Amino acid sequence: MGEVALSNGQSHSMNGYRKSCWYEEEIEDNLRWCFALNSILHTGTSQYQDIALLDTKPFGKALVIDGKLQSAETDEFIYHECLVHPPLLHHPNPKNVFIMGGGEGSTARELLRHNTIDTVIMCDIDEEVVDFCKSYLVANREAFHDPRLKVIINDARAELESREERYDVIIGDLADPIDGGPCYKLYTKSFYDCTVKPRLKQGGIFVTQAGPAGIFSHTEVFSSIYNTLRQVFKYVVPYSAHIPSYADIWGWVMASDSPIDLSVEELDNRMRQRIKGENRYLDGRTFSSASTLSKVVRKSLDNETHVYTEEAARFIHGHGKQA
Amino acid sequence: MGEVALSNGQSHSMNGYRKSCWYEEEIEDNLRWCFALNSILHTGTSQYQDIALLDTKPFGKALVIDGKLQSAETDEFIYHECLVHPPLLHHPNPKNVFIMGGGEGSTARELLRHNTIDTVIMCDIDEEVVDFCKSYLVANREAFHDPRLKVIINDARAELESREERYDVIIGDLADPIDGGPCYKLYTKSFYDCTVKPRLKQGGIFVTQAGPAGIFSHTEVFSSIYNTLRQVFKYVVPYSAHIPSYADIWGWVMASDSPIDLSVEELDNRMRQRIKGENRYLDGRTFSSASTLSKVVRKSLDNETHVYTEEAARFIHGHGKQA
Amino acid sequence: MGEVALSNGQSHSMNGYRKSCWYEEEIEDNLRWCFALNSILHTGTSQYQDIALLDTKPFGKALVIDGKLQSAETDEFIYHECLVHPPLLHHPNPKNVFIMGGGEGSTARELLRHNTIDTVIMCDIDEEVVDFCKSYLVANREAFHDPRLKVIINDARAELESREERYDVIIGDLADPIDGGPCYKLYTKSFYDCTVKPRLKQGGIFVTQAGPAGIFSHTEVFSSIYNTLRQVFKYVVPYSAHIPSYADIWGWVMASDSPIDLSVEELDNRMRQRIKGENRYLDGRTFSSASTLSKVVRKSLDNETHVYTEEAARFIHGHGKQA
Amino acid sequence: MGEVALSNGQSHSMNGYRKSCWYEEEIEDNLRWCFALNSILHTGTSQYQDIALLDTKPFGKALVIDGKLQSAETDEFIYHECLVHPPLLHHPNPKNVFIMGGGEGSTARELLRHNTIDTVIMCDIDEEVVDFCKSYLVANREAFHDPRLKVIINDARAELESREERYDVIIGDLADPIDGGPCYKLYTKSFYDCTVKPRLKQGGIFVTQAGPAGIFSHTEVFSSIYNTLRQVFKYVVPYSAHIPSYADIWGWVMASDSPIDLSVEELDNRMRQRIKGENRYLDGRTFSSASTLSKVVRKSLDNETHVYTEEAARFIHGHGKQA
Repeated sequence: MGEVALSNGQSHSMNGYRKSCWYEEEIEDNLRWCFALNSILHTGTSQYQDIALLDTKPFGKALVIDGKLQSAETDEFIYHECLVHPPLLHHPNPKNVFIMGGGEGSTARELLRHNTIDTVIMCDIDEEVVDFCKSYLVANREAFHDPRLKVIINDARAELESREERYDVIIGDLADPIDGGPCYKLYTKSFYDCTVKPRLKQGGIFVTQAGPAGIFSHTEVFSSIYNTLRQVFKYVVPYSAHIPSYADIWGWVMASDSPIDLSVEELDNRMRQRIKGENRYLDGRTFSSASTLSKVVRKSLDNETHVYTEEAARFIHGHGKQA
Repeated sequence: MGEVALSNGQSHSMNGYRKSCWYEEEIEDNLRWCFALNSILHTGTSQYQDIALLDTKPFGKALVIDGKLQSAETDEFIYHECLVHPPLLHHPNPKNVFIMGGGEGSTARELLRHNTIDTVIMCDIDEEVVDFCKSYLVANREAFHDPRLKVIINDARAELESREERYDVIIGDLADPIDGGPCYKLYTKSFYDCTVKPRLKQGGIFVTQAGPAGIFSHTEVFSSIYNTLRQVFKYVVPYSAHIPSYADIWGWVMASDSPIDLSVEELDNRMRQRIKGENRYLDGRTFSSASTLSKVVRKSLDNETHVYTEEAARFIHGHGKQA
Repeated sequence: MGEVALSNGQSHSMNGYRKSCWYEEEIEDNLRWCFALNSILHTGTSQYQDIALLDTKPFGKALVIDGKLQSAETDEFIYHECLVHPPLLHHPNPKNVFIMGGGEGSTARELLRHNTIDTVIMCDIDEEVVDFCKSYLVANREAFHDPRLKVIINDARAELESREERYDVIIGDLADPIDGGPCYKLYTKSFYDCTVKPRLKQGGIFVTQAGPAGIFSHTEVFSSIYNTLRQVFKYVVPYSAHIPSYADIWGWVMASDSPIDLSVEELDNRMRQRIKGENRYLDGRTFSSASTLSKVVRKSLDNETHVYTEEAARFIHGHGKQA
Repeated sequence: MGEVALSNGQSHSMNGYRKSCWYEEEIEDNLRWCFALNSILHTGTSQYQDIALLDTKPFGKALVIDGKLQSAETDEFIYHECLVHPPLLHHPNPKNVFIMGGGEGSTARELLRHNTIDTVIMCDIDEEVVDFCKSYLVANREAFHDPRLKVIINDARAELESREERYDVIIGDLADPIDGGPCYKLYTKSFYDCTVKPRLKQGGIFVTQAGPAGIFSHTEVFSSIYNTLRQVFKYVVPYSAHIPSYADIWGWVMASDSPIDLSVEELDNRMRQRIKGENRYLDGRTFSSASTLSKVVRKSLDNETHVYTEEAARFIHGHGKQA
């Protein structure tokens, strides 16, 4: 390695060469999504997973678990606002919430912005992930120290079954029901029937992330999760939003035995009254658009017949969220 | 290279190795999108561009011009239904249409599904691209031979300026106004004022593709195109849809001096009455959702002050559509 | 897709964008080697393997089997000159040769350049590969039609064992003994002892390709093949050469019970006398350099104790040649 | 991000997903070489260059300057042993050495292993690179603190021209003479004639790294550097070695007005007598092989007519060493 410039004052062009470090994810076998890297900030290994925090050029800091992007600094607000605010806003007065999973802390952070909230229980199985996120995800630091938050390390199903209390809202912030993955049991009809529903208070709302919801990808798990929930609850609302770092539309499903139906204006009113600070992504009109699915997707959901049971899970290749 | 298996009956696993041929696109400097390839079907070079037709695993046949994906077999219907049907449906009785660009033929194909149409003029500058698409894009073959279609090889601006007749709908199916690209002159206020508007009949509608419209990418050109059009027309409607092969939300803007505002039901009625065959992507509710932009994007559009002029173009890195 | 240039005479730069189609090979889990593609010329599937002929920018036409590069137009001459000429030149008068594998035809092509040759038997198990190469590899067309060549479709071991005749030279042009691969049985001490040696005439020479022979990679199989052969033959000569398209040094081993030792001058003389046309890679001095291994590799070979047996095969990840 | 495993004792497989962080280098426009990454250890920017120290899986720690691999932990010993030991061993008693470039410190490290050495002057233009390497390259730490080493920050040409003293050996450890690069002036006939030669003592030897020397790549600069040196010196010895992390053979050229010709035995003797510790790559036989070039390369070198002058530089795409 040698001398690189004569003393003739030629300036050094930083753009004379291409990006050389990349994060690469196989969204499907045949499809890759690659981010230029600034650095690899931290890596760790838990009992269950390999964890990495990357500093990417297009999407900022990115949490990657077992080679799958979990969330990226610049757009995780879309995922977490969509997961948390619709069920809380549609509930008349949400006080206590149970999060299945959610170890990253962003779901708790959004919940704790609601002034109606008394208690949030976050139950994640992987203590190292929780500790890793607590240490490194600056945006969630305040939430992790909020006295209203209680973190429990346990299997969410076992925990829910062991508890007597009921919740205003239960949130499924779990990995997708992927092939060989450990989470599909938390997406089954019997789990919803026997574990989730009995732990909701009167008027309570359940919400779950529901995997990719794009024009092609919504048949992987989104339509089945929707169909499974409508076997169990009277009112079921699917909705979706584009998350750039996932390279896809993402889906969520809310479900309740009480009607879930507010006008754009009422949603906007409740946001103003209950939520500290301003949402970046979600307002009444955005939710109205997000819950009006496109023709193709609506049709698929209407026609879906598959129901998740422990015997008949349906898996995906591993978009975005993964075990 | 030698013998590969003993005669012991061991079977050959086709999945024992990874995909080895890939199409790779730099969506931005820091972001890549890669499709596994089945084959490279055809390549060609025109006076203006390099053209390739690839057979990709995730998105079927893909038309690539100068290293940029133009459209992919499996999802081009989203782009072309969104470009064509909203302006035609909002027009009371569209009979003649002028397409600026559109050499691929898909825009003409969608137009010709409308039973009100008498004449479609497609004006593209690159004869080789038109011939290439005519030869290889099977889905558009019928459209290219429809007697209502007239293909003209010329610069769209020169052509429009030289013609006396006026149109019910003018469609901009042009490359984005990218840095150094030749098309930005077809996105300026003066072009809209002096060339497009005078060539629209009373009640006529102009629509243009308007580049990426994602939560981050909409500030590249979408917001400026919108703002430029609202300097020129009384009624301007921006809308967007996710196109999986583009790895982003895409945007379009409709503009007119007559109101553009129909109910979901009226849109669905007109589709049934006027369009041959059934849309795959678009119906009334889908358009209602597509034209309700999310909070972030709405805000940006409201606050946008940039106007395209020949002196102050705004360029993008080259998402999807490119010169 | 639209108009791409105004009629202002701006010329079209073909270099304004990056290469977009690539062949990608994982040389090891952690190491990739990627060639820009012009086209995918042919693909096929045999009973045993997937076959593809690619047109690559850096190395011309490339034969790829099961996702592994077998040989590339621009540098296969190095591999095949090194495999064929050293044993034939060291033999006083080679008349008949048996090739185990070699379905590509290049080994036969090099053999048939020797004017001493009466008969070449090429025994490859995969008829489709042989037919594919016969059809598409123009450089070997003449060889495939040479009356001195006899092509047999069979397992090389079974074929050798079933034949009574003996050979001046036997050539192993087989896939590496990789993990789970079918060829390792053709690299064992017992195969050399019981099948190969008895089929060599007095003074006969055996040669085999012997996998990667780089400073790090030679311990994968090269040193073991060398050590196995020196258990069986009195004289064993390892040698190596860099093959650019393999991104590594490659190795071969010659073995005989008669001395294999000629001066640079005698090698050059025999080449002039016996070989039709001129070699591109190999001459006397090149062989002298090729058979003088570097310190690290010499040491490893001297100290190697592993012997291939059917019970104790040693596998490699799958450099270059593969089953 | 959620719970990833039920408490059923399922173990976590770390190999269930593919490598996701990669270093990627374009060896040529059409050829890429990619290493899986463990981490990005340090990055920095100097007045002249961007510097990075990466931890790669296949080649250990790698120094990358302006997107080009400079040297990798696992195989830099090949490059540096080949650059340093041949000239020092062929010199009867080398006491003082001048390194042009060499800021990495590895060239100095190898020099300082010779017990004849009194003084080493390393003259590199980029202080930040020198400081970066001093801090982070543990293998060179001792060398950087050796009292026999004097580090000078200056343009090597200006420095050499300003000094009165003469050297036993001068070493060119410079970037290749690439297109637009600043170093080509240090490869010209006039530089060798007017600056280098006058600064060599009687019997002195000049050596320079000479770029890629593969079967195809040797015509980029290796043959020209060789031919330029034989215009200036009576004895010129080109030699080469494969460096795995460069994915190519690399070349060096020694030149002197005294004969450069020792037997394998004498080289081995001098190594034992003069060099502290044992070489990993180079011994007498290795040098004999390294300096016996293959037929193709020998021919090109013999026939080369190009001479580097300030007016007629020949550039390469940027293999390995770069400005």
